[in-house]
Order: sequence, then C-alpha cells, then structure tokens
Amino acid sequence: MNPVNIIVKKRDGDRLTAQEIRYFIKGYVAGQIPDYQAAALAMAIYFQGMSAQETADLTLAMAASGDQIDLHAVLPAGTIVVDKHSSGGVGDKTTLVVGPIVAACGLMVGKMSGRGLSFSGGTIDKLESIAGWSPDLELDRFLHQMQAVGLVVAGQTADLAPADKKLYALRDVTGTVNSLPLIASSIMSKKLASGADAIVLDVKCGRGSFMETLDEARKLASLMVDIGTLGGRRIVALVTQMEQPLGYAAGNSLEVKEAIAALHGESAPDFRALVESVAVEMLLLGASAGESLDEERALAKIRSVIDSGAAFELFRAFVAAQGGDVAMVDNPDLLPTAPVVLPVPAPMDGYVGRIDARCIGLTVVDMGGGRRRKEDIIDHRVGVTLAAKVGDHVVKDRPLCFVHGADEVTALAAVRRVMQAFELQTTRPQPLSTVLARFSS
Amino acid sequence: MNPVNIIVKKRDGDRLTAQEIRYFIKGYVAGQIPDYQAAALAMAIYFQGMSAQETADLTLAMAASGDQIDLHAVLPAGTIVVDKHSSGGVGDKTTLVVGPIVAACGLMVGKMSGRGLSFSGGTIDKLESIAGWSPDLELDRFLHQMQAVGLVVAGQTADLAPADKKLYALRDVTGTVNSLPLIASSIMSKKLASGADAIVLDVKCGRGSFMETLDEARKLASLMVDIGTLGGRRIVALVTQMEQPLGYAAGNSLEVKEAIAALHGESAPDFRALVESVAVEMLLLGASAGESLDEERALAKIRSVIDSGAAFELFRAFVAAQGGDVAMVDNPDLLPTAPVVLPVPAPMDGYVGRIDARCIGLTVVDMGGGRRRKEDIIDHRVGVTLAAKVGDHVVKDRPLCFVHGADEVTALAAVRRVMQAFELQTTRPQPLSTVLARFSS
Repeated sequence: MNPVNIIVKKRDGDRLTAQEIRYFIKGYVAGQIPDYQAAALAMAIYFQGMSAQETADLTLAMAASGDQIDLHAVLPAGTIVVDKHSSGGVGDKTTLVVGPIVAACGLMVGKMSGRGLSFSGGTIDKLESIAGWSPDLELDRFLHQMQAVGLVVAGQTADLAPADKKLYALRDVTGTVNSLPLIASSIMSKKLASGADAIVLDVKCGRGSFMETLDEARKLASLMVDIGTLGGRRIVALVTQMEQPLGYAAGNSLEVKEAIAALHGESAPDFRALVESVAVEMLLLGASAGESLDEERALAKIRSVIDSGAAFELFRAFVAAQGGDVAMVDNPDLLPTAPVVLPVPAPMDGYVGRIDARCIGLTVVDMGGGRRRKEDIIDHRVGVTLAAKVGDHVVKDRPLCFVHGADEVTALAAVRRVMQAFELQTTRPQPLSTVLARFSS
Repeated sequence: MNPVNIIVKKRDGDRLTAQEIRYFIKGYVAGQIPDYQAAALAMAIYFQGMSAQETADLTLAMAASGDQIDLHAVLPAGTIVVDKHSSGGVGDKTTLVVGPIVAACGLMVGKMSGRGLSFSGGTIDKLESIAGWSPDLELDRFLHQMQAVGLVVAGQTADLAPADKKLYALRDVTGTVNSLPLIASSIMSKKLASGADAIVLDVKCGRGSFMETLDEARKLASLMVDIGTLGGRRIVALVTQMEQPLGYAAGNSLEVKEAIAALHGESAPDFRALVESVAVEMLLLGASAGESLDEERALAKIRSVIDSGAAFELFRAFVAAQGGDVAMVDNPDLLPTAPVVLPVPAPMDGYVGRIDARCIGLTVVDMGGGRRRKEDIIDHRVGVTLAAKVGDHVVKDRPLCFVHGADEVTALAAVRRVMQAFELQTTRPQPLSTVLARFSS
C-alpha cells in the first residue's frame, strides 16, 4: 500500500477500504506518513466525504491508535457504563446535573471530558471553578471512584486516540475542521476508546453550536449513531436547540451555581427539559436486561433523586472525591465571583425574539472566561447571566441580562456587545423546542 | 494575512488575490509556511480550480521565488530569445531538430531542459547518449555559447523558480499533480524565470502524454498562453497529437539517431510535420519588427537550412560546444547500441489502427531507458523502433517494430508487452492529424 494511492483514491471519490484507512492512520501516528499527506487526505475527505462504513472504519482505526480502556476487567459483571457527550454549546452545564442524577439512579458514569475552545465552554473548566477540584486522575483512581461514588469526570487519563489528537491539530491549521466525517470520527474515536457501553450524544444545533443548520446537525447525529452501532455500542443521539444560551448562565463559576440550583430542583425551563431528556436516554440505555424501564418511569426516577436530595449528595461526594472544596457546593456564594456586575437594560418594552448564543459565548471568552488559544488561562468568575429568555416579556430599562466582569472596562465593553445579541419584538414569538430530533440504532 | 484563511478561501471557491498568492508562495519557500498547509492548499486548488488571473499570479510568484535571468543585459540590443517547450510525450525528439533549424535561421535559442519522468523522455537524457556531452553550464558559458553558436540546451543553470521545485515535489506525493492551474503555473514559472522573449509551447494530447483528452489539452494550452501574455511574453501554443509515438524511435540513443537523420532531411511524415509546425511558429514569433515574414517564407527558410546542411552543421557545433563527441554525430552508428534487437511480428495482415504510445513509453522505461524514480540511472541504448505507423499496411509475421534491449530476458518481456500496443484492423484507418489546435495571444 502507498499513501499517495490512498489520497488519489479518495480524491477521485472512491471508497477506501478498512485496510487502507488502518494503514494510513497507523502510519500517520507512527510518523511514517507525514503531515503533508495527512493534510492532503483530509482536504480530499472534505470535498468527497466518506460513507458511514468508511467513517466507522476511520473511527475504529483512531480509537485503536492508543490505549483502549476496558472497564469490565475491574467492574462487577453486568455493569453498564454510560457516557454522555455534548458537541458543545453556550451555557451547557448539562453534565454537571445529568451526571449526578444518573449516578444517583444507580448507573455508573465515567466520563473523560475536554476543555473549552472558542465560544463553547468545557465541563472541566467549569468544575475547576470549585477550589481544589482536579480532573487529573490515574486510571486506578478513576476506576475506584467509579465504584465508590458512581460518577467520575476526568481529563484524558490515558493516551486515548492519539491519532485523533494529531489529526485534529492538523485539521485546525489546514482548513479541514468543518468536515462531517472528520468531526464524527474525532468525537467517536475518543468515546469508543474510553470504554463506555452506552453513549448518549447531545448534538447541539444553532447559532451557539458548531452545527448551525438542522440538516447538518441531523447528519452528524445520524452518522455518529451509525459509527457507535458499527462499533458495538448502545447509542442514542439527540439533536437539541442551541439558538439561545442554555439556561440562565454562561461562564464557568456562574454555570456551576446554576447546576447546583438545578440539583436542588430550580431550573430554567429549557435547561430542565434538556437535563430530563438526556437523563432519560441514559437511564434507558443503561437499564440492564431484567429491568423493565420506560420513559415515564425513568422520568419519575430522575425527579425522585432530585426531590430526595440524592442527586445533590452524589454531586457533593463526587466533588469531594476529586479534591474539591465542598463548602462551595453547600454554599455556592463562596464560588469565585466577579467584582463588577453590570445590568444590560432593555431598549424598549417587548418580547425577546432572539438571543444570539454565539455572541454571548464569544463575549464570555473575550472577558477571559474561555480560551482563544489552548494556552490561555481562564478567569472562572466572569460571564453573563440572562434575566430574560426567548419568549419572555421585558420592560424598557429593566435588565435583559447581567455582565459579570473582572473590571469596569471589560465589563462595559461586554455590555455594549451583549446588547447586540438581543432582538426584541412587539409580538410574542413561538417558543423554541428543546429536542429537535432523535436518532437511535 | 494567515495561511489557514487563504486555504479556507480557496476551499470555499473564492478567488485569491495576487497579494495572498505572493504571501503564501514567499512563506512556503522561506519555510515559514509548512508543507502540510501547502498540501492542503494544493488539494483545495485541485477541487476548486483557479482563474486565469490567479494562475498567472501564482506563476509570477513562483517565477519571482528565485533567480530571474535577464539575457538582454549581455545580448545585442533587439535580440529576441526564443524558447520552446513540450509538455512531454513518447519519442519526442523535436527540440533536437527544431533547435538547430531555428538557430541556423538566425534566432537565438537558449533552452533550459528537464530530464524524463514516467513514460515521457527528456531532452537532456537523449543528448547524454552522445559521449561527453554535458548539460552543466554556468550562466556565463550559457550566454557565451548562445552568442557563439546560437543554440544552448542546459540543465537548470540557475536557481530558477525554487517555489515550483518545492511545490512540484510536494504535489508528487500528495495526489495533486493532475490540476490544470498547477501544471500550467509549474511549466510557465520556469519559462518566465529563464528569460525568453518568445515561447512556443507544444502541448501533447493523447495516450502518450499527460493530457489524454483534447478538451484538457486545449484548456492547458489556452491557460498557458494567457499566463505568458499576462507575463509580457510573445507566446503560441500548439496542441499536437500524441496517440502513437512521434516518428519512428523511442529511447534515448535511438532518438538521437532519428534526429540526426531528420537534420539530413530524412523524417517520418508525422515528425516532419511537427518539426515544421513548431519551427515556423518559432521563426514567426522571433521575427524582429522590420522583418516581413509569413508562414510560407518561414517554411522555405526551414527547408533551405536543412537542404544546405546548415542545420546539421549547427547541431554539430552545438554538440561540440557542450563537450560532445562529434564523431558520433558524423557517424550515428557510433552512438550506444543495444546488444539485443528483436522483431515484433505482425499477428495478421492488415492496417495499423492504433499504437498505444503510453505502453511503448512505459516499456522503454522498464527496459532501463527512463526513470521510475528520480535517482534511477538511464540505459541510453535501449528502446523501440517502429517499422509501421498508424495507417500503414502490414503483412503477417513481418515486423511491426523492433525492441532494442540490454539482454534477452528484458527484450523478450518487452516484445510481449509491445505486441499489446498495436491494434491491427482490416480497413485503412483515418490518418492522424499532427496539429490539433493552436492558441496565440
């Protein structure tokens, strides 16, 4: 086999075999196939696409390029490990609430999470708002905590899918990020390598996500379900709305506060709807053979672990297990707080017709709450909290939202920018749906 | 400016500005823009193409990336230097005949030539069949010989278009060779940098060339004429037929013999037609302002320098000037000769309907007469000589052609292979035209 022939084959629109894909990925990770050939192949894939089978083969090849965690070697027989992944959005603190809920319902949730990039935040960045909390766990501590607590959120503890890491960095500098099969295989290779039996994917769609159209998001969701199925996993993908920020808060510490409130039963309606949808799917996928569970019963279980405080207690135990200061969990006012909080006043009476989630997300990044480059250090305090969501009625000069800034200058700049994110109108808009589509194997 | 943005712009089908193209090429040659970004851009160009203006800008940027020879600093005022370039074919010894003819007519022909690659031979490889002849000339010797003899064929004497050299090597290993704007800019960047005032391009079309369809060849020819014109050159491109090998011989030493015969007035009809067409264009382009020259007079001049022996004498002087053994020119039987010569018999009576030039060219390469890789050493003796051309009548068991091999084993293998190249039929086929199209500025 020859890398040039593989590039030319894809360039000419032919399908690559599993053997060709494995040869290329293996050679690329080993440094035998150089970056320039991988760049040419990535661009050819950008133009010619890949079939579901090719994408699955690429995913499996990347998953096989490094460590593949076998959780069942240590966990009790019959244990089903459930993972959940979001394609990234603004104000997406879902894992912080869904994880404890599902674990409190008795499933094992072992998650390797990423950090934020661009307008989309990362779960680990959010949790690091809690003093002392660390994502750096060795694999044996990961496994121990999963059994002891039922919930772990770690950074990549193992050398998972190094092919993806290398390819992703290359795509970033060669204009080949925005390719459906490359996005799908990148996400799924890490999921498959990290050893979960069941996966719920939350594919965000809209201005505040990487998939702006429903058509693109549906394709990505469907493709990832195909890959997961071909990889032998139970898998469901929800396409969910990401036009406006999810819930009320965007910004690390502010989102942790909102997540803790949600674990106490207080949620924005859109956030509650998403949490319940994702948690239901996780419970259904994680149900063991003997268990008779339907959507209604799953929902009842979810509400009961919130009402009983079991979900909150599980979150508290999870934070403690990873070194976090539980005082901040018990009293969220102790979480890092921005020194300057400015209201963004409504310019007129009316209804909120639109809140541009991407604008909010990028404003938070520029205030220091996210990364423009990988090496940027995050200010956990800053962010935006909404006082009104799409469909809400607002009164002139009353706040649309609040900007939480590190100083007057950046906060004032953020106020001016965030103001542009709101569109007010005189008639009440149609409410936004939360779940737009669902795919399962 | 940012390389990724330039890649993405081209990927999305937008036109690049001259400034963006210059920035990219300059950065690439300087090593500031890495191979993987150039590979991604080349693949994006493969898919999205380039306008004539973009291609001209790319060509000029590559021409400006190294030395640019100014012949007029040393040549007498008003001198017009004419160059001729073939896109590569099988049995294409045209330069060896046209060069001396045109120089004997009084024009200055200064040519930097390449070596052969794949099925297409190179002028320098052919001339190296003559003992002692060398293409390695310093620039001052190049200029001196041009004035003293009127004809020079050198390897690249200067650091011409290093951007092209780097990009060509990259395209070769990234599946991006076969892109019209990249092919056109590669050829023309070297032509523009080498300082000729007038250029005649011979774009080969057919099985024995890199452009298999007339449509492709016409597009390439037209694009190169546009580039040359935008670069301020007088330029004509002929699209010429390359279905069957040109003339009778394919193989280095064999082609030199055929060229010498042609300088003595003995040519295969197709070869004579091509030589005259190219030489006429060169004379017309090279005519100075005061001179009244038309096609008919140019043709008469060409025939007269052959009949008088002036063209042959010029070739002899040219070989001598570059260190070649003129005894071999005077007596071509002294040229390197293959030890084994085998006939390839006709399997039936009939007419030759087709001779697959690519098959003949690749057979010569595999016998050692060409390069599969750049570092291969050439056996100048080997090759194929045709005993019949398309349209000729042949008799069963009489030779279609002869294989000239280094030993019995390779020669026998070549016989079996070359046999497949001939298609015989019972009716006389339409004769093949020589010049298929002509483009001028």
